[in-house]
Amino acid sequence: MADPAELTATDAARAIQAGTLAPTALLDACLDRLLAREAVVQAMAYVDPAQARAAVPLPGPLHGLPVGVKDVIDTADMPSEYNSAIWRGHRPRADAACVAWAKAAGAVMLGKTVTTEFATRTPGPTTNPHDPARTPGGSSSGSAAGIAAGFFPLAFGTQTAGSVIRPAAYCGVVGFKPSFGLINRMGMKLMSDRLDTVGVMARSVADCALFAGAVSGRDLGDPDTRAPSSPRIGLCRTPVWDRAEPETVALFEGIAGPLARAGAEVRDFALPSEFDALEAAHAVIMNHESARAMGWEMCTARDQISPMLRERLEWGLAQPEAAIIESHALFRFLQDRFEDMLDGTDILITPAAPGEAPVGLAWTGDAAFNFIWTSLHVPCVTVPAGVGPNRMPLGVQIVAPRGRDREALAWAAWVAAALA
Amino acid sequence: MADPAELTATDAARAIQAGTLAPTALLDACLDRLLAREAVVQAMAYVDPAQARAAVPLPGPLHGLPVGVKDVIDTADMPSEYNSAIWRGHRPRADAACVAWAKAAGAVMLGKTVTTEFATRTPGPTTNPHDPARTPGGSSSGSAAGIAAGFFPLAFGTQTAGSVIRPAAYCGVVGFKPSFGLINRMGMKLMSDRLDTVGVMARSVADCALFAGAVSGRDLGDPDTRAPSSPRIGLCRTPVWDRAEPETVALFEGIAGPLARAGAEVRDFALPSEFDALEAAHAVIMNHESARAMGWEMCTARDQISPMLRERLEWGLAQPEAAIIESHALFRFLQDRFEDMLDGTDILITPAAPGEAPVGLAWTGDAAFNFIWTSLHVPCVTVPAGVGPNRMPLGVQIVAPRGRDREALAWAAWVAAALA
Repeated sequence: MADPAELTATDAARAIQAGTLAPTALLDACLDRLLAREAVVQAMAYVDPAQARAAVPLPGPLHGLPVGVKDVIDTADMPSEYNSAIWRGHRPRADAACVAWAKAAGAVMLGKTVTTEFATRTPGPTTNPHDPARTPGGSSSGSAAGIAAGFFPLAFGTQTAGSVIRPAAYCGVVGFKPSFGLINRMGMKLMSDRLDTVGVMARSVADCALFAGAVSGRDLGDPDTRAPSSPRIGLCRTPVWDRAEPETVALFEGIAGPLARAGAEVRDFALPSEFDALEAAHAVIMNHESARAMGWEMCTARDQISPMLRERLEWGLAQPEAAIIESHALFRFLQDRFEDMLDGTDILITPAAPGEAPVGLAWTGDAAFNFIWTSLHVPCVTVPAGVGPNRMPLGVQIVAPRGRDREALAWAAWVAAALA
Repeated sequence: MADPAELTATDAARAIQAGTLAPTALLDACLDRLLAREAVVQAMAYVDPAQARAAVPLPGPLHGLPVGVKDVIDTADMPSEYNSAIWRGHRPRADAACVAWAKAAGAVMLGKTVTTEFATRTPGPTTNPHDPARTPGGSSSGSAAGIAAGFFPLAFGTQTAGSVIRPAAYCGVVGFKPSFGLINRMGMKLMSDRLDTVGVMARSVADCALFAGAVSGRDLGDPDTRAPSSPRIGLCRTPVWDRAEPETVALFEGIAGPLARAGAEVRDFALPSEFDALEAAHAVIMNHESARAMGWEMCTARDQISPMLRERLEWGLAQPEAAIIESHALFRFLQDRFEDMLDGTDILITPAAPGEAPVGLAWTGDAAFNFIWTSLHVPCVTVPAGVGPNRMPLGVQIVAPRGRDREALAWAAWVAAALA
């Protein structure tokens, strides 16, 4: 049998169900891997092996599966510090809703994973498990790195710009940012009310469907059951294509052939010109809302906010009313019209990130290929798609219309199989 | 000079600015009133006069103005218990964003006001200051009663169905539920992500504009400056007109005359038939989202939730996916089309509540005339409009399109003057 720490969640759940894998053996394998690699990977904001072992998992679809919880998501029995000195030592009274539902479905919270400061830009210490000189991406840094390093098969992340999809791609794992609101976000440290979305990471698309379905109470299907037909795919280079690295350009030059051979209709898809203003609108909404939401920190502890974040928040506070109103209107306009714009295309395929994970830990990379989809509130899945010139993972991102999370996952599994 | 406890916030702010009223004198007058009447009114979930007197108000537009804070809104220096045994003794680490911005604008948090359980139906002990045998309305019971009783000139409330507008009308004060999201809601006990809205109460429309403007960072104008023209008004009886009490029917029969004499174009306005399904959709979204948001309470302390609320939450959890999706779609459809449906009408005038506050404290009244506008995310203002057969206050509600908060407040002041 393979090392349990390398199993997908669905395989591990099947083995636990069949009695061939004990939840304690799975947890031990994950903790062994963590103890062996954490000194370099530094994925964890908090972990107590004895506490994780003491949890008695409930029956349910996630029975015995260890979960990494991004440390902007509250936990009643572990610190929740948002990677900010302002919140050092904070112990919430309650679990976030997604944590409570995960426990109720049988999962074991293994520990808290490193986030950038308040899920924004200032990074934590986490390194990429494929190359410790490179960023794992962010803001869900520890969740992505921990899945890749075998610390847990499932993890929670959150996305306001590209904080689930980009680190998942950089670390070679599967990331799923559902439609806005699919996973209830109460108990996460909310920053941007119109953008913040809870997402999940795992080692397969089916794992993401299992996990997100269990914590949302929605049926997200079994993506391993092949879709009944082949998708109509739009290859979408987006208005920020000039920020794609050569490895991404090469990936997208080579992708249409295998997708078509697997049966898909593939065409190029250009976003209408209304999307050109979206990056600026996203910045206005994210920074304005985050600054207003951080009223307590801004008014009582502003000097403990990193200079990089403080500058952005002050910029957000200073936005004129007209910019805020126009940005809201553009969001609403594009959200309402995106499905019609697709004109029968089932999914878009677009880069998950500009390219391989950049060298260095001071920057978690560019969310250029992510902010559009977060703003649209649509489901996105990134699946691994080979490696770049430095043998670092690349991802491709599957995007579907708002509310079509089940279809997004099914087509993502189809795409992953077609590109394998 | 009048008793400072009876001043509007704008008059008190002017007097403080002019040096004719000390912030300590205003606070003392409010606390005196509170000590005299609280045994009957029972508006406060928490108040410590020494603590309120120890606060040193900052300079700003709200300098020295006492505020009542509904106890579903977190405060770092006072308990925040959401009127639930589950949260007894809870002391949050941080102030909610709206509290932090209110303090930064100079306000003094006088205390926490009674809410129904988690801002839903199970009431607290608060009585109506106009008749202690009658409900003050809910869920923002203590905020409305406290304004009416002279405990504070300004208060925060929250609304998911009718929890700001209805109690304000029952208590004869002004209530303002802004456009969804205008006042940042981080740090309130979030229940329904698509509905929960922070609102304010005061003794005049201008007070609401002053307070909501200061805590949102938006310019909401000065409603006491007469609008440049007269409004085009639609009298909207809504699809639930059969739930209007006789005093409301009489009020609406008599309202068109004075409004027209003041210069308004007044016509009847019937909501299109798509609105007929909205009450059911509102119930699905509110109860489904609230149940998912209360994952921690539902999974770890379900027996400490009141039977009435638990039954609603379990009904929400049991909603089929199709009902949830259809309800979301109806919300979006009506939100996007409401302004066009108004067809040049500036505002609607509609009841704030079915009638006078009902006798008894076991029920806070019917939100029949409120859920529509909360679902649409539009600004609503209730202003006092005389009394009913039992000398209890009645209100009329002014509704404007989403984002037109400044206009809603200006027209509400116009309507209040026309009906005075």
